[in-house]
Amino acid sequence: MIVVEMAQNSTGIDLERVRESVERSGKSCRVVSGREASYIVASDGTDTSGVSALPGVRKVNAVSCCYPLASRAVRPGSRPVEIAPGVVLGEGDPVVMAGPCAVESRDQLLETALAVRKAGARILRGGAFKPRSHPYAFQGLGSEGIALLKEARKASGLPVITEVMSPEEAEWVAPHVDILQVGARNMQNFSLLKVLGRLDRPVLLKRGMAATVEEWLQAAEYILAGGNDRVILCERGIRSFDQNTRNTLDLGVIPLLKSLTHLPVVADPSHATGRRDLVLPMSLAAIAAGADGLLVEVHCDPGAALCDGPQSLDPEEFSRLMTAAKRIMEAVREEGTPWERMLAR
Amino acid sequence: MIVVEMAQNSTGIDLERVRESVERSGKSCRVVSGREASYIVASDGTDTSGVSALPGVRKVNAVSCCYPLASRAVRPGSRPVEIAPGVVLGEGDPVVMAGPCAVESRDQLLETALAVRKAGARILRGGAFKPRSHPYAFQGLGSEGIALLKEARKASGLPVITEVMSPEEAEWVAPHVDILQVGARNMQNFSLLKVLGRLDRPVLLKRGMAATVEEWLQAAEYILAGGNDRVILCERGIRSFDQNTRNTLDLGVIPLLKSLTHLPVVADPSHATGRRDLVLPMSLAAIAAGADGLLVEVHCDPGAALCDGPQSLDPEEFSRLMTAAKRIMEAVREEGTPWERMLAR
Amino acid sequence: MIVVEMAQNSTGIDLERVRESVERSGKSCRVVSGREASYIVASDGTDTSGVSALPGVRKVNAVSCCYPLASRAVRPGSRPVEIAPGVVLGEGDPVVMAGPCAVESRDQLLETALAVRKAGARILRGGAFKPRSHPYAFQGLGSEGIALLKEARKASGLPVITEVMSPEEAEWVAPHVDILQVGARNMQNFSLLKVLGRLDRPVLLKRGMAATVEEWLQAAEYILAGGNDRVILCERGIRSFDQNTRNTLDLGVIPLLKSLTHLPVVADPSHATGRRDLVLPMSLAAIAAGADGLLVEVHCDPGAALCDGPQSLDPEEFSRLMTAAKRIMEAVREEGTPWERMLAR
Amino acid sequence: MIVVEMAQNSTGIDLERVRESVERSGKSCRVVSGREASYIVASDGTDTSGVSALPGVRKVNAVSCCYPLASRAVRPGSRPVEIAPGVVLGEGDPVVMAGPCAVESRDQLLETALAVRKAGARILRGGAFKPRSHPYAFQGLGSEGIALLKEARKASGLPVITEVMSPEEAEWVAPHVDILQVGARNMQNFSLLKVLGRLDRPVLLKRGMAATVEEWLQAAEYILAGGNDRVILCERGIRSFDQNTRNTLDLGVIPLLKSLTHLPVVADPSHATGRRDLVLPMSLAAIAAGADGLLVEVHCDPGAALCDGPQSLDPEEFSRLMTAAKRIMEAVREEGTPWERMLAR
Repeated sequence: MIVVEMAQNSTGIDLERVRESVERSGKSCRVVSGREASYIVASDGTDTSGVSALPGVRKVNAVSCCYPLASRAVRPGSRPVEIAPGVVLGEGDPVVMAGPCAVESRDQLLETALAVRKAGARILRGGAFKPRSHPYAFQGLGSEGIALLKEARKASGLPVITEVMSPEEAEWVAPHVDILQVGARNMQNFSLLKVLGRLDRPVLLKRGMAATVEEWLQAAEYILAGGNDRVILCERGIRSFDQNTRNTLDLGVIPLLKSLTHLPVVADPSHATGRRDLVLPMSLAAIAAGADGLLVEVHCDPGAALCDGPQSLDPEEFSRLMTAAKRIMEAVREEGTPWERMLAR
Repeated sequence: MIVVEMAQNSTGIDLERVRESVERSGKSCRVVSGREASYIVASDGTDTSGVSALPGVRKVNAVSCCYPLASRAVRPGSRPVEIAPGVVLGEGDPVVMAGPCAVESRDQLLETALAVRKAGARILRGGAFKPRSHPYAFQGLGSEGIALLKEARKASGLPVITEVMSPEEAEWVAPHVDILQVGARNMQNFSLLKVLGRLDRPVLLKRGMAATVEEWLQAAEYILAGGNDRVILCERGIRSFDQNTRNTLDLGVIPLLKSLTHLPVVADPSHATGRRDLVLPMSLAAIAAGADGLLVEVHCDPGAALCDGPQSLDPEEFSRLMTAAKRIMEAVREEGTPWERMLAR
Repeated sequence: MIVVEMAQNSTGIDLERVRESVERSGKSCRVVSGREASYIVASDGTDTSGVSALPGVRKVNAVSCCYPLASRAVRPGSRPVEIAPGVVLGEGDPVVMAGPCAVESRDQLLETALAVRKAGARILRGGAFKPRSHPYAFQGLGSEGIALLKEARKASGLPVITEVMSPEEAEWVAPHVDILQVGARNMQNFSLLKVLGRLDRPVLLKRGMAATVEEWLQAAEYILAGGNDRVILCERGIRSFDQNTRNTLDLGVIPLLKSLTHLPVVADPSHATGRRDLVLPMSLAAIAAGADGLLVEVHCDPGAALCDGPQSLDPEEFSRLMTAAKRIMEAVREEGTPWERMLAR
Repeated sequence: MIVVEMAQNSTGIDLERVRESVERSGKSCRVVSGREASYIVASDGTDTSGVSALPGVRKVNAVSCCYPLASRAVRPGSRPVEIAPGVVLGEGDPVVMAGPCAVESRDQLLETALAVRKAGARILRGGAFKPRSHPYAFQGLGSEGIALLKEARKASGLPVITEVMSPEEAEWVAPHVDILQVGARNMQNFSLLKVLGRLDRPVLLKRGMAATVEEWLQAAEYILAGGNDRVILCERGIRSFDQNTRNTLDLGVIPLLKSLTHLPVVADPSHATGRRDLVLPMSLAAIAAGADGLLVEVHCDPGAALCDGPQSLDPEEFSRLMTAAKRIMEAVREEGTPWERMLAR
């Protein structure tokens, strides 16, 4: 594909001129106006001979992948995503997001929120709209859950992340939370991704259960191509033949993604393993592999959880996890992230 | 789960009385009012001691699966789905649906429609809204494609099937076509499934690339639980480690599903293999395995197709497929479907 | 790779001359002396400019795959494998091999052998050496089982197939049976394959549970490269994420293999499904897909079987399967095999 | 299963008496005489009422798994495996095994051996018999390779590990090396495992590409049941749908295995990823997950390697890996291994 990057001080007229020039060569193209930069993306074979010289053009890239805006080829290096003042994914120590699978009640959410903050979590997670395998299972508190998340955000001072499942939900929920989460089952729900591309909210995009790295980055590209450049990738386990764990945490994708994309990558050891006793070791492993963050399920009373109890930590376990995680973070921090050291050869 | 089936002549008052009785035992329940029957679905542990004796109650079932309305346990036997007069899935010979992957133009669609009808197809397929892996690929003609499908239906006399990807699209498209298709990527797009449950249109639900049979049936249950009982399952290949074919057609699920559910099951050998030369043998195999129908990509000029050309048959190849398919249908027809013969022991 | 095929009337001296010529170009090569033809296989980059003109040379092929002797590129068309007079795989109607998973006793084997012959099986299967997942399970009758197989062969007139698991077993068993079977777990047991290449016995090579088509053909190449050109491939199900069936029968490989290799391909619906009720439909599907044969587990009393009882048919069920299978065979026979028709375009 | 553990000071007569008692109840059983303890393993349903009271009996266990000798249920805690004086797997810091994929020459092996020792490796790896996908690839130096490994052991002072592929090879190689390796393709080569059970050498058993944890432990049980209790498990990546990496390193099995078995568990990040740039981060992740060791491919000149060059580190890269690995080891060491901390709740 051909990607024309506009200079930061380029004007709308510059952009229009580039678009016209590209279209004159008989190819359609797409204008992406992001917060930091604007791009024109055109298909291979586009004649761009005159484009570089046009006013406002910073660079013309030809890339072989189908996720140009997500790629390091077009946008080199890491690009941290800021969630709230001082809470940045992809820069400095990994950021831990923690909280219950589902928002169940005011007490449950607030107690858990304060506990995870105390232990060192920087972002509060909690599901209000729950994607459940069958229609008779608890589907979440819905809008009431969103109201409780806002209350918990205020009480704890932690920014919040919650899942949305449809274009309509995304638009409605966006103003109320800090990160919109796309679940594994919706990774290729393109109608949803298109809407998220138009919203001004960071998006955490979970990997589909059987999604290749290319498919995942192309799904992210849907959001980026809409103009929303704050996408966080989340590895949450792939489906394999072995059913001892709920899924198989594929940590190899963390350094692999780092070589392909500038987007931050976090890991969800809770859904990946489905077993409380594996959450701590897999959290440490994810950090050692270079993850920019973790998404951990914590419940003030896991035995009473309405969903995913067996994989939820109680506050004490989470606190133990954070202590161990910090030690690994220190070990990693001393020399830069692992993949950078290796690639540096 | 507990499923209370109401008699056909039961009244709304009967239904209310059952609901109240179930809720008195402290459990929530769900009322499903279908075209042919109504049900109250309640969770395990519900006290149903007095329910059987209530007026209008036909039967009280306790089932262990999470897809009661899709199961043979609650609704024994096969339940054919009628698409148009004389076009019935799940009864008589398998029904072949054929047509282009994407609607590209009036000429392309009409020429293909007439060709597949001539060869023996009973339903016309064609995509107007296309789920594409990356945002820069052809996304379909949209509403213009729907208009062309209506025209092709009129010209060919064939009912039409097309894919929808969001709740909004589903509602808008439903009145214009005969079957709404849910693609593999959206099998667990629960927001979409819920809307489809409220619509009065047959739904063809493709299996997700890494979906187990239980997950697939539970996804179908979302539609059934909304009151829409015309669901057709479509095996289109699962994702495996071998990349010689686009996916791996899992024909074993056809007889397996027949033992679990009353819903018709069809196969899509085009997406499953991704290779033109494998479509014919896999079509024959699907019929021999007991499929109620096929979904086959045919294009009047595969070399010029905007998507999925390599797996599309031209009209002559499709005609050859139909000739061979009819021979296998005859062989199967003579003794009843394979699974019934085997289960009959 | 470079494959030099010698003419049928070429001499040992001709062969030596070719070898020397190839080695002079600085590359090592391998001489394969088969029953029907001899080959010299050399790596890419070998200078073969003078080779075609040497006496006894029939043809010099350059192929891109790593299984030249198994490929249609070097040996076009199908190459039937004769097991016994009139019992040929890869020519005419599919051949059904049937019998118990394990040889358990004289009575069990003889009763089953006579029953499967009566129903139309052409080859008797029975395991004497059993590969079992754990060491405490029944490991087969060993040499006593081989003796019983010989007796059953005499009594029934059916040639026999049995599994071998080590080089030593292969050498010892070869003279006593008609086909040596390599199980899925040993598909890449290269020490075993090398010995089988030196033996004068047909080999049925099952696909490994997670083997790609290339790996499978390369495993077959080990046997062919040893000079044994009678190899039969057997698809027996791959491992997937869905555990409703023991494995996932990948019927798409049947027509796929037909386009790549001249070797016969059979299917084992018993191990693939692990469920008696799925064996019949999957048998029919395999034949419709173009299989050259079936491998079916039949036990005179499945409930008492020492292994794989749940997937074994009783003689009556097997007889029903054969009746249905013959009908599909007829339907397929009328126009040539499916893949040939499709490729004929 | 029933497992009778004999006291350390029990006699052969005691053992015989237990065996007779078990067999009187009509069940067969297996006597396992290990270096440290002896066991009688019998199937479920064995009457053991009188056994506990017999002389020399330490304990009678009933276990539900099919790998009793490998399980923590029968043999609680971790059981370190000593390879050489001071080189112990499963105790203290993880042990790194490093060296070339294949032994290629005296110079190559010695140079690499000295380099990995200098960087901190404790065991030298090197293949003399290579399992290659096709018969025309370099198959290893064979016995010459074993001679070079002995020389390198002497020169470097490092114990050596090498792969064996057949019963015959195993018997021949055992006296010359310190650990016998079973490759992924041979994990269920039961003839090989049985011979390894009779040999007095530690065995490193790699996980098969599509093996479940149960199948892996049952394969280990074949060796343990032969009396050889020094088995090390090695996770080397499973086969998944994503081909960006050679395999998918399944680190979740490390803490999972720790809860099921007393055997040490190591990871092979080289084969798992197939990419040099991913070896370092995956090594760190494996250690953080609680691995007892690593198996890393190092070549003095990766570009010239006869096999697996793209995944081999050069000595400098390996040295960098060891520096980083030690930092993670320290972080892990301070609080006990991760899984123990988690299970301690």
